[in-house]
Amino acid sequence: MKVYFDNNATTPLHPEVKKEMTAAMEMYGNPSSMHAYGREAKANVEDARQRVASFINADDREIVFVGSGSEANNTVLSLFVCASAQCIPGTTARGTIITTKIEHPCVLETSECLMHRGVNVKFLDVDRYGRVDLDQLKDMLNDDIGLVSVMMANNEIGTMQDIAAITNMVHECGAFMHTDAVQAVGKVPVDVRALGVDFLTMSAHKIYGPKGVGALYVKQGTPYCPLIRGGHQERGRRAGTENTLGILGLGKAVEMRALEMHDEHDRLLGLKELLRKGIEDKIDDIHFNGHPTESLAGTLNVSFPGAEGESILLYLDLEGIAVSTGSACASGSLDPSHVLLATGVDAERAHGSIRISLGRESTTQHVQHMLNVLPGVIERIRNMSTAYIKGGTHAASR
Amino acid sequence: MKVYFDNNATTPLHPEVKKEMTAAMEMYGNPSSMHAYGREAKANVEDARQRVASFINADDREIVFVGSGSEANNTVLSLFVCASAQCIPGTTARGTIITTKIEHPCVLETSECLMHRGVNVKFLDVDRYGRVDLDQLKDMLNDDIGLVSVMMANNEIGTMQDIAAITNMVHECGAFMHTDAVQAVGKVPVDVRALGVDFLTMSAHKIYGPKGVGALYVKQGTPYCPLIRGGHQERGRRAGTENTLGILGLGKAVEMRALEMHDEHDRLLGLKELLRKGIEDKIDDIHFNGHPTESLAGTLNVSFPGAEGESILLYLDLEGIAVSTGSACASGSLDPSHVLLATGVDAERAHGSIRISLGRESTTQHVQHMLNVLPGVIERIRNMSTAYIKGGTHAASR
Repeated sequence: MKVYFDNNATTPLHPEVKKEMTAAMEMYGNPSSMHAYGREAKANVEDARQRVASFINADDREIVFVGSGSEANNTVLSLFVCASAQCIPGTTARGTIITTKIEHPCVLETSECLMHRGVNVKFLDVDRYGRVDLDQLKDMLNDDIGLVSVMMANNEIGTMQDIAAITNMVHECGAFMHTDAVQAVGKVPVDVRALGVDFLTMSAHKIYGPKGVGALYVKQGTPYCPLIRGGHQERGRRAGTENTLGILGLGKAVEMRALEMHDEHDRLLGLKELLRKGIEDKIDDIHFNGHPTESLAGTLNVSFPGAEGESILLYLDLEGIAVSTGSACASGSLDPSHVLLATGVDAERAHGSIRISLGRESTTQHVQHMLNVLPGVIERIRNMSTAYIKGGTHAASR
Repeated sequence: MKVYFDNNATTPLHPEVKKEMTAAMEMYGNPSSMHAYGREAKANVEDARQRVASFINADDREIVFVGSGSEANNTVLSLFVCASAQCIPGTTARGTIITTKIEHPCVLETSECLMHRGVNVKFLDVDRYGRVDLDQLKDMLNDDIGLVSVMMANNEIGTMQDIAAITNMVHECGAFMHTDAVQAVGKVPVDVRALGVDFLTMSAHKIYGPKGVGALYVKQGTPYCPLIRGGHQERGRRAGTENTLGILGLGKAVEMRALEMHDEHDRLLGLKELLRKGIEDKIDDIHFNGHPTESLAGTLNVSFPGAEGESILLYLDLEGIAVSTGSACASGSLDPSHVLLATGVDAERAHGSIRISLGRESTTQHVQHMLNVLPGVIERIRNMSTAYIKGGTHAASR
C-alpha cells in the first residue's frame, strides 16, 4: 500500500484541476495581446482571479498572481527595501519589521537579508504550543513599526494564530499586517475582510493545484512595490507573462476547495485523532508537538526520543509511506527544526520528530497501515541507538 | 482560416510538450522531499535541467529555473542593489551598469528603479537597423562598469547583436556580461561558452513550452544573489517549490527545438521573404524595420504610414489573423515603440508599425492569406485617415 502523508509539503493535483489544465493547454494566447488569442487567455485569467478573490472574500483587483508563496512573502518584506529608497512615499519613517521565530524560511531568510540592508527586524517568541505571545507583541509595537508578518498556520506543527486579534493590535499602532496563509487557505475558512490584513500569501500546490503559482492579496490602497518589474501585467504589480495554465489550475483548485474543505476538515480531524490515539497506544515515550486544538486538522507532529527523524522517514519510505521531518524547504539541513526549538523542545527531541500531514486522499486504511508499520520502525531504530534509554531525557549524544 | 503570426509574444505548446506535461500531472512529489515521491520529482527536474544545460552548452549546475524571463532579468540587474549592500564581496567597487535603449521593458524599468536606488545606468544607442554602437560601448567601458546587459535578439524588430564581440570588450574591462536571449534561444544556435557571457536569460513560452517558467544561466564562479530567498531550491539561488510541470515542459521544449530549429530556420526565412516581397509588391509606401540579414528568421516588422498599428491589428484580428504592434509586455500603452524610436524612426511611422512573427506552425497558406487580406486593410485604414497623403512624410497629426 502507498500512503502519502506529506500533504503540507505538496499535494497531488485534484482530478478537476487536471481536467481544467489539460483543456487549457489548447489555449495559448498571451493575455497581454490584443487579438482574439490574447483576449481568450485574458478572460480565463480574469475568471480565475475572480474565483481566487471570492474564495478569500477579496476584490479581484486585490489579487496578484505570483510564482510561489515564497515570491509573495519576499515581495511583501522587500517593500521595505524599496521604502528605504523612497519608492513608496510616506512609508520611510517606519523602519522596523516584526515577525516570529517560527515563520517559513522564506520569511526568515529575507528578514536576515533586510537586516544586512539596514532594516530593523524583531522576532516574536511563541509558547510551547507555537502560539505567538500577544503581550510581547504589544510591548514591541510602537510608531517605528512599519510591517508585522505572522503566519496563519505553521507548516511544521499546524498551530494557528489569532490573526484577526494580531491585526487589530498592529493597525492600532499604524503598521501594516501581512500573514503567510499558505498552509491555512483551503483548509480553514479565510476571509481577508474579517481578518483585516493588508497582505495575505497563498499558494496553489498546497491545495491540490499546480506548483509554480501562488497569489498575493494586497488590500486596496496599501503601499506596494513590485519585486519583478517591467510589464503592465497584474496591474503593474508583477511583471512577466502570466502563467496561464498555473493560474487556471489555481482558480479551479480554490473552486474545488470551496466545495470540499468543510466536510474534509471534520474527516481529517477524525483521522488525525485515530492516528494520535494509535501512536499513543502502541509506542512508548512520545511527545506531540503543536497546539492540541488551535491547529490544522490534518497536521500531526510527533517526537520519538532515541529515533532520528530522518531515519524514521527513510524506514517508512521503504514501506511506501511518505512523511517529512519538517519543512520541505529546509530538508537536507542537519539543523533541528527552528519551529520546534522555538516552542522550547530540546535539540534531541527536535531531531527525533516527524510531521504527518493528511490530505483529501487520506483514508482510514492509510492510517491503519501507518499504525501497523510505525511501531516496528521506531523500535528498530531505537534498538540500533545503543544510547537510548526508554524514558530517559538524554539519549545518544550527537 | 486562422493565422497566428504573433509567435514573438508567445507560442502554442509543442504536441510533445503537451504529452510530457500531461504525463507529469501524475507526478506530484515535492522535489525537496526525501521520500520516493520527492526523489521521483527531483530526478525529473534534474533531467530537464540537464536538457536545458546541454542545449546551450552549459553545465547543469549553471542553470537556475525561474518563473519567467522577466524574473531572470530582474535577478541579474538586482545583483547590483545587493552589491551596494555588500551581500557580494568584491563587487561593490563598480557602481555602473550599461544596457541599451532597445531592451525589453523588464530591463529598462528595473534599470530605472536601480537609478532611484543610486545605481548609475548608461544606455547604449543603436543604429537604424537596431545594432548596438560598439564604438560607443568602447568609450563607455571603464573600471566603474560592473555589468553590461545587451539583448541577443530584439523582440520587436528581430535584430541580433554580436554578443561574443561585446562580451570580449566587456570582459577586457573586468565587468560581467548578461544577455537577455529570450527571443534567440531555440531560434538560432546559442552556445554560452562560445558567447562567453556570465549570465543568459531564456524563457519556455517563446519556444513552444509553457508560460510561467524560464531559466537563468549563471557561469560558475560568477557573483550571485537570489531575488527570491528562503529555500535551498536551485542550490540556494531561487527559493520556492519548483514548478515541476513547467520545468519538465521547458526540458521537453528545448529537446524538440534541438531537433527542429535548424530546418525550421531556413523554412521561416523563406516564408518571411515571401511575405516581405508580397507586402512590397501589393502595398505602397511601406518601410521595413530591423536589420535586413542579422535578424531572427521569423520576425518581420513593417511600418505603414497613415495607418495606425493598433487599427491594423484589430482589422486583421477580424479576419482571423493575429499580429502585434510591438512587445506584448508594453501593449495597451499609447506610447510609440521605444525600439523603433531608438532606430531613428519618427513617432508617426512608429505608430503605424506592426510586428509579424512566424513560428513552427506557420505555412505558405498562412502567408498567402495575410497577403490577400493585408492590402485591403491598409487601404481601408488609410482612406479613413483623411490627412494621409501617399508618400508624404507627415500624415495625420496626432
